[in-house]
Amino acid sequence: MLEGLLGELIQNLKRLPGIGSKSAQRLAMHIISADKSKSLELAESIRNAVEKFTHCSACNMLSEQDPCRFCSDKARQNGFLCVVENTQDIHLIENTHEFSGRYFVLGNLLSPLDGIGPAEINFDKLMDLIVSDHIDEIILALNPSTEGESTINFIASHLEDMNVNITRLSTGLPFGGDLEYTSPITLGYAFKRRYSVKE
Amino acid sequence: MLEGLLGELIQNLKRLPGIGSKSAQRLAMHIISADKSKSLELAESIRNAVEKFTHCSACNMLSEQDPCRFCSDKARQNGFLCVVENTQDIHLIENTHEFSGRYFVLGNLLSPLDGIGPAEINFDKLMDLIVSDHIDEIILALNPSTEGESTINFIASHLEDMNVNITRLSTGLPFGGDLEYTSPITLGYAFKRRYSVKE
Repeated sequence: MLEGLLGELIQNLKRLPGIGSKSAQRLAMHIISADKSKSLELAESIRNAVEKFTHCSACNMLSEQDPCRFCSDKARQNGFLCVVENTQDIHLIENTHEFSGRYFVLGNLLSPLDGIGPAEINFDKLMDLIVSDHIDEIILALNPSTEGESTINFIASHLEDMNVNITRLSTGLPFGGDLEYTSPITLGYAFKRRYSVKE
Repeated sequence: MLEGLLGELIQNLKRLPGIGSKSAQRLAMHIISADKSKSLELAESIRNAVEKFTHCSACNMLSEQDPCRFCSDKARQNGFLCVVENTQDIHLIENTHEFSGRYFVLGNLLSPLDGIGPAEINFDKLMDLIVSDHIDEIILALNPSTEGESTINFIASHLEDMNVNITRLSTGLPFGGDLEYTSPITLGYAFKRRYSVKE
């Protein structure tokens, strides 16, 4: 029953993140039973997006234009550079309205065991950008994971001799969080990085 | 940031069942950042499935062939007819390996307030099939919901004068269920329909 075109569609849907067998089957049934024009629009928009999106030649962000809208916006070239793992992180940071500088997408986090070294995180390109754009502060907005920490340490150690301020996102309790449900590591960080209530 | 082709893709993904804004954004980012050929395959298989799948002219099931593989299988034309709401239900019933007859897909459940009457559930076609295929037992495998109940009552009342056995799926405790977490309605049904342990 799930062979043929429907089986193929289900297999292709299952490759998407967070879509298991049951969801894929439900989505596939919806796709073939819903309004045909809507499903064809979906297929078309996947094709369009895949074909048009490309990595910005300056910052590596996935964008419809090259250079992307951040790199081509002169108002954002203000000496701040935010280094992220992937394009999705840029969306999340933009939603906070806390940052108005430019971005740089590493594409990966260092993970020597998986064969991901400096070349795979576009490190040379990052160094060139820091010099050419007169960056004063570089914010390493990477996940506080093992790979994130090694990437932060690697980049920071190579920028030591340059006249650039290197910062990272704070770690601590999530807003609205509860000490009871916070992991000991997070709570430990929150203690270590406690700050004056007057700040 | 979410305008243009990416925004369009996200909108189209959000129309799928169970996909909210966050999931749609995550899926869209995966689609444009993953292996291009895989994403194009997905688009292609959506298009193929939508274009090739059609309603079986005999039972209304969505199928690549017309008649579908159940209606064209002479071995299954054994006097049993299972009436379901949609094609997905056929998959679920086939997985139980409890039924070897033919199916009939209503496409809807009766819901006068939503303008869904006998014509929208293919009622005349169902009646014709029962007569032409010498059906002995018709199993109304519909959800035990308000709409399901009215559909069961409607069909049953119109088949009263015909020489056909009309059955419906049993209602009661789900296998592995717990009385504590069972709704009073379900528990009430389970009491009303209790059966001898010797059965």
